[in-house]
Amino acid sequence: MSEKLPKTAVTPASHTTPPAKFSHGVRKGNILQVAGQVGFLPAEPGRAPEPAGPTLREQTLQTLANVHAVLVEGGATWEDVVMIRVYLTDTGHFAEFNELYNAYFADLTEAPSARTTVYVGLPAGLLVEIDALAVLG
Amino acid sequence: MSEKLPKTAVTPASHTTPPAKFSHGVRKGNILQVAGQVGFLPAEPGRAPEPAGPTLREQTLQTLANVHAVLVEGGATWEDVVMIRVYLTDTGHFAEFNELYNAYFADLTEAPSARTTVYVGLPAGLLVEIDALAVLG
Amino acid sequence: MSEKLPKTAVTPASHTTPPAKFSHGVRKGNILQVAGQVGFLPAEPGRAPEPAGPTLREQTLQTLANVHAVLVEGGATWEDVVMIRVYLTDTGHFAEFNELYNAYFADLTEAPSARTTVYVGLPAGLLVEIDALAVLG
Repeated sequence: MSEKLPKTAVTPASHTTPPAKFSHGVRKGNILQVAGQVGFLPAEPGRAPEPAGPTLREQTLQTLANVHAVLVEGGATWEDVVMIRVYLTDTGHFAEFNELYNAYFADLTEAPSARTTVYVGLPAGLLVEIDALAVLG
Repeated sequence: MSEKLPKTAVTPASHTTPPAKFSHGVRKGNILQVAGQVGFLPAEPGRAPEPAGPTLREQTLQTLANVHAVLVEGGATWEDVVMIRVYLTDTGHFAEFNELYNAYFADLTEAPSARTTVYVGLPAGLLVEIDALAVLG
Repeated sequence: MSEKLPKTAVTPASHTTPPAKFSHGVRKGNILQVAGQVGFLPAEPGRAPEPAGPTLREQTLQTLANVHAVLVEGGATWEDVVMIRVYLTDTGHFAEFNELYNAYFADLTEAPSARTTVYVGLPAGLLVEIDALAVLG
């Protein structure tokens, strides 16, 4: 390997500006890492980031859509994802989250990604955060 | 790389069915990701998933055994693991966990994996969750 | 790939001994994983690990320095990092942490790493833990 692998920031046009100097996604070689996404609606000029709604359902679907947008922008699909990390704030949300998750991924044809789910603190109003690791090729 | 890399679900026969559409492990290219494992005993038909016991010791040893089963099923060993993520629920468990961890890995001959340990919430009755990333080859 | 990939522990001389059998960093193939680092000062013989200070600022800067030392020892730089995982203990620290983070990374020339930030428990006195995944080459 004498050529330096290029490293590319992956920034869907729909996404809000990250609150610090990090990328929503980054690709190097055949690795695509998606940063922790939350349920923010697509960015609108002049509007502060705003969750899709107060419910687990609204936030989970928007969060998955946001992860997906980064995957697509980086040349990947859910089929390429090997790990999904799920951060919930309440163990009481596990069953409903899994229902939403299963419905969302019902049409996957490849092996489903691995997953870890833990319960953490998140900024006020946010119920779920998700990041993902994809291997392309 | 003109051939598409195969992606394979890794599912030890001993493992309980995941509570959602994810794989206990997944391999793509030379990456093997093990999903978050907890201290559930080997699956028995008709029995709900059940921890190996209420203690940190019982759950840690079973959790490590469960991670190991996924590694082996995926063609890897602990020697291939580059990252182990440990989720405990109580900072008071750190010293005992490390004793168990060190004893378990006493015979490693390659460089030990990196590790991150943080304290989170887990479903009631579970004291430890562990996932792992292996690079094969 | 008929040759077995070497796996190497990465241990900066400045680092305190890990509290268990894990490596501060480990490299296999083109993957370099940095273990969770905290704000411990460089090791001194006979002194127990000690944070750089009680403040978020002191601990964040020391933690980033500790991650960086592992990267350098492993043949990488921040430019090679694709994922930074940040564990804070208080959502009230997010804004100050981001200021410190942005100042620290002001001179990055490649695409910034992806990042996930969640709020967890850490051992008493520690306010921040950070790990990192780099892809070399």
